[in-house]
Amino acid sequence: MAENCAVVLHGPNDLRIEKLPIPTINNNEVLIKVSCVGICGSDLKIYSTGRCGQESVTEPLIIGHEGSGTVIEVGSAVKNFRVGDRVAIEPTQPCRSCEFCRGGRYNLCENPHYCATTGVSGNLCTYYKHVEDFCHKIPNNVSMEEGAAVQPLAIAIHACNRAGIKLGMNLVILGAGPIGVLCAMTAKAMGAANILITDIVESRLKTAVKLGVDYTLLIKKEYTDQQVADKILELLGTAPNITIDACGFASAQRVSMMITRTGGTILVVGIGAETVEIPLSRALLREVNIIGAYRLLNSYPAALSAVSSGAIDLKSFITHHFTMKDTKSAFELAKTGEAMKIIIHVSD
Amino acid sequence: MAENCAVVLHGPNDLRIEKLPIPTINNNEVLIKVSCVGICGSDLKIYSTGRCGQESVTEPLIIGHEGSGTVIEVGSAVKNFRVGDRVAIEPTQPCRSCEFCRGGRYNLCENPHYCATTGVSGNLCTYYKHVEDFCHKIPNNVSMEEGAAVQPLAIAIHACNRAGIKLGMNLVILGAGPIGVLCAMTAKAMGAANILITDIVESRLKTAVKLGVDYTLLIKKEYTDQQVADKILELLGTAPNITIDACGFASAQRVSMMITRTGGTILVVGIGAETVEIPLSRALLREVNIIGAYRLLNSYPAALSAVSSGAIDLKSFITHHFTMKDTKSAFELAKTGEAMKIIIHVSD
Amino acid sequence: MAENCAVVLHGPNDLRIEKLPIPTINNNEVLIKVSCVGICGSDLKIYSTGRCGQESVTEPLIIGHEGSGTVIEVGSAVKNFRVGDRVAIEPTQPCRSCEFCRGGRYNLCENPHYCATTGVSGNLCTYYKHVEDFCHKIPNNVSMEEGAAVQPLAIAIHACNRAGIKLGMNLVILGAGPIGVLCAMTAKAMGAANILITDIVESRLKTAVKLGVDYTLLIKKEYTDQQVADKILELLGTAPNITIDACGFASAQRVSMMITRTGGTILVVGIGAETVEIPLSRALLREVNIIGAYRLLNSYPAALSAVSSGAIDLKSFITHHFTMKDTKSAFELAKTGEAMKIIIHVSD
Amino acid sequence: MAENCAVVLHGPNDLRIEKLPIPTINNNEVLIKVSCVGICGSDLKIYSTGRCGQESVTEPLIIGHEGSGTVIEVGSAVKNFRVGDRVAIEPTQPCRSCEFCRGGRYNLCENPHYCATTGVSGNLCTYYKHVEDFCHKIPNNVSMEEGAAVQPLAIAIHACNRAGIKLGMNLVILGAGPIGVLCAMTAKAMGAANILITDIVESRLKTAVKLGVDYTLLIKKEYTDQQVADKILELLGTAPNITIDACGFASAQRVSMMITRTGGTILVVGIGAETVEIPLSRALLREVNIIGAYRLLNSYPAALSAVSSGAIDLKSFITHHFTMKDTKSAFELAKTGEAMKIIIHVSD
Repeated sequence: MAENCAVVLHGPNDLRIEKLPIPTINNNEVLIKVSCVGICGSDLKIYSTGRCGQESVTEPLIIGHEGSGTVIEVGSAVKNFRVGDRVAIEPTQPCRSCEFCRGGRYNLCENPHYCATTGVSGNLCTYYKHVEDFCHKIPNNVSMEEGAAVQPLAIAIHACNRAGIKLGMNLVILGAGPIGVLCAMTAKAMGAANILITDIVESRLKTAVKLGVDYTLLIKKEYTDQQVADKILELLGTAPNITIDACGFASAQRVSMMITRTGGTILVVGIGAETVEIPLSRALLREVNIIGAYRLLNSYPAALSAVSSGAIDLKSFITHHFTMKDTKSAFELAKTGEAMKIIIHVSD
Repeated sequence: MAENCAVVLHGPNDLRIEKLPIPTINNNEVLIKVSCVGICGSDLKIYSTGRCGQESVTEPLIIGHEGSGTVIEVGSAVKNFRVGDRVAIEPTQPCRSCEFCRGGRYNLCENPHYCATTGVSGNLCTYYKHVEDFCHKIPNNVSMEEGAAVQPLAIAIHACNRAGIKLGMNLVILGAGPIGVLCAMTAKAMGAANILITDIVESRLKTAVKLGVDYTLLIKKEYTDQQVADKILELLGTAPNITIDACGFASAQRVSMMITRTGGTILVVGIGAETVEIPLSRALLREVNIIGAYRLLNSYPAALSAVSSGAIDLKSFITHHFTMKDTKSAFELAKTGEAMKIIIHVSD
Repeated sequence: MAENCAVVLHGPNDLRIEKLPIPTINNNEVLIKVSCVGICGSDLKIYSTGRCGQESVTEPLIIGHEGSGTVIEVGSAVKNFRVGDRVAIEPTQPCRSCEFCRGGRYNLCENPHYCATTGVSGNLCTYYKHVEDFCHKIPNNVSMEEGAAVQPLAIAIHACNRAGIKLGMNLVILGAGPIGVLCAMTAKAMGAANILITDIVESRLKTAVKLGVDYTLLIKKEYTDQQVADKILELLGTAPNITIDACGFASAQRVSMMITRTGGTILVVGIGAETVEIPLSRALLREVNIIGAYRLLNSYPAALSAVSSGAIDLKSFITHHFTMKDTKSAFELAKTGEAMKIIIHVSD
Repeated sequence: MAENCAVVLHGPNDLRIEKLPIPTINNNEVLIKVSCVGICGSDLKIYSTGRCGQESVTEPLIIGHEGSGTVIEVGSAVKNFRVGDRVAIEPTQPCRSCEFCRGGRYNLCENPHYCATTGVSGNLCTYYKHVEDFCHKIPNNVSMEEGAAVQPLAIAIHACNRAGIKLGMNLVILGAGPIGVLCAMTAKAMGAANILITDIVESRLKTAVKLGVDYTLLIKKEYTDQQVADKILELLGTAPNITIDACGFASAQRVSMMITRTGGTILVVGIGAETVEIPLSRALLREVNIIGAYRLLNSYPAALSAVSSGAIDLKSFITHHFTMKDTKSAFELAKTGEAMKIIIHVSD
């Protein structure tokens, strides 16, 4: 156990690999030798702009919140892990005592200590410590890479749980980025019948088809909302029970209110514009519920089970690999929008 | 059983009392001598403008959809009613076979035959026929006036059911018109702790306080959304678990997204603008659900029970009375916004 | 359209093929040339004993309630079907007006006109008429045999909907008869991780494994409840989130209360003994819900979608075929318990 | 702050008042000068027999789990309380990290540290320390006595939440002990229309009527289950939507399965016999759900709100008062079954 290397963001596009002390664990924590860390859209946003949602880089920040690794030390009160266990790291440490934590919605915790947010270290580093109950054992037939990619899958599962997907339902997903595609894969695993996905980037649609989506629609700039809605309904053949907005554009939200089946649900995952102009009544008068999904909630175990049982094929979802020292190149690739999931290999 | 007088709308502000044939009942119908009919906001809208929501007066229309009366004839297949029964008339005859009817959401029926909509007679007339299973017996201790006013109460109950009100919750209701006030009364009967209601008309707020609301806020034109939000939170002392928009203004919807407690619900009842500019993300990122309530669903029995048991005091909610021949005066009063609930007495 | 042959039960083991008039359709009905009819456990029970649940053969009864066929005539008010359409017949015609029908639970209808119950014709006959809204179009890539077998699948889907199966859950299913196995297949399609199924007949367990079940336990007569519980937990490796009792034995119900995970659900499908001796508190003190599923509710569309999309492989579930004239032999095979699903071919 | 007196149970009927050290608080704890402690059925059981459910007195145990008091010291990390705050003590300290705690069901925690269970001190003592987030501020218009009695009310609210009570429902409650009566009061506050309660002790029924119950039935030993069921249905006039078993007798559970409305719910609160002989199918075939409620979950805030707003009148529920030194007499009174709620006054 030599030194702890970490990828630290100092400001927009200013990423440095630095040597830091190896963390000292508390009684209820484990020390993890990190193996893989995925790169996601919010990483890219904060890398490019120094901001993401309500977060901004005001001091140097270790990035990374999609991590997996091996337990190399356990605290004295740790019950469920031993040295050598392979773990996926759920990137949060909620306060456990606010009304949301006590009420079973720790994703809404008032003081969540979420990885790679102000004051909370991310896990794109050699050694990372974490409370044991937010570490999850990786099944033997699941790789470390998949263990890292379980994080966005857990987000998709939380979104799909909130949406209330049932066997035989038809879905439209607006946006074929990683979360949109994972929502499609999750919905299929939950028994969705037909899924149509849209995007403005053709390569993403091709990947989505490979991963199981039934129909795709390439959105062109000149399309009006009504045209997009008409094309979707014609392709899918019916109004979707559920529409998932996984892109956050106001136009996507308008279209969702036009196409979703009476009595159905619009689920918004991800961060949209501050203010949008939308035909809200058009949804609400038909009792179409509009709900959001924030981060993830108790969905790591289901994600790991689904990958292990083969219900969800995460291997095909992972498209690119880099080593830690090439993290900057990974981000440059991410900017192109061509990669579905990039994994940084920290150690073997 | 002499003649059937009906109040017929021929166009904006063109209301005529006409003599029509007494309806002939089918096997599964009852003939009702109408006693009382309430006047509501949508009646007023269609009276004033010839339009309401997607409805427009294209042919003469018997108005009225808040009716009560006495059964004077029963069809051969009628099982649950006898001549002399006092009934509240649930103003719909859904198709019973579309996916929404079979799925238990007949309020979303594709072909609902809702009273006083195009092609479907309203019940502001002397004799009215209706299918027996959408008639409801009025308990002995409930008056015919209350039996008529049960209709908007059933709408409020449906809205409160959709909102998921639970014992001890705090609510904000935006709009102190009849539906807003009935939502407040229903919420109290469901165990809501503290309710704040807003309006732009001071007299409505006074009535609301008499009917059990805890806090009121008079909205002034010069208030910004932020000011309204701040005043509400200061008065109520906490963010509400549920906000009910019972006025349909875009500003109310914006405020609701600012004030509703994280993890809570915004319920919109009634018809709003076609397009609104709102901070949708501000609600959805905190997993505040935005849902609508349309008409009513299986809520007549609960409404009649609640009035009979005293849980809801409909008597105090009824503020004005007219006879059928003075219906026009009733509408003129309704235009002032001073009346909470006006009852037209068709017969004694 | 020559004559209407029907398989009529006159009493225990007294099955006769008789010629009956071709039914005359009403406005909202279609006439169906029946293609395939499945045989199920309740058919077998009533054939063998003249009784099943609260039903008893008091007058000659056309059997069959798992039917598919081709529309050959449509009533004047029929909107959604044309001559030539291939349909799966949902075997009920609820009253559409009792509190359960209006409330969206028509499976609990007080007057359901369920096929092959007293006074209601079954569909093991050449020509059968049915209301259009309880007929469901069979997708092009689904066969008539599968269209018949969709009925028990729809029962399994209703049971699994009631049980609340979610992605990643572990299940135990007690009883590997057709409904138990279809519940397993449905649960997998809904994303269940690991499923263990039990039975007293080894051949059924083998079929269950072929159809996707992960673990099996052959129950031997000498096993105590505790032994069964221990073996299940050891094999599955964890307490199941949901236990489905698909056999109705009191011992199965006792075991379910011992093994189900705290906070989980026991779902009972099918008819059990009138009185059972069970450790009820053992489940309830751990907030394990005990719920039943009766017949089916709005699950035909999902069933047909799931078969069409490939999520559920009904073809492998169908194990034996007979022609109508050999119905008696089909029942004799059914008695052995070796067949998973027997299809009677009425016409091609 | 002189000495800490505590009521300690050493074995059946062996209650001693002892002097113990004043507890030392941790950072996240408050020290409370106890004011009032209520006596409940489980206290009585463990006092009389040394056992209650899975608990048994193996070492001296400070009893009491229905406490209120005044904060006299706060830990360094305490945020929400100050010295002088009046608090109701929620008698648990769940582990906050097991799957149940993380899933929002801390009442099912695997390691709950529930007051007055093995190894966990009760609060019938002069000074008691507790984690701040399981203390709840008592509103100004609520007394210390009520603050203590909020504990059983919170149990009743959890039970009624689990039962899914809605406005206008009819209920039967079997057992008019404190929990049964509080369930009735809670159900009324949630909008229940008519409530019938049963018991074998007439005085309890009289108290129940005073507290708002509509109908009562005195159960006599010679009644058969069928007779009890018939009498209930005749008195109530309809089958109840929900039946609450608040006595735990097998006969009550049998009756509940006979009377509950099709599609309704049977809620069992409290500890019943290990094994019961019941007509389970009679409930499940009609999709009557059978569910249990264990302890309480996030219901203290609602309980305190409901008492403060007047929705629930706890004052009338409290019937007897003792000082700490007379605790033994309090238990002797409790044995008679005549008292509804006994409060021990520890200090003023």
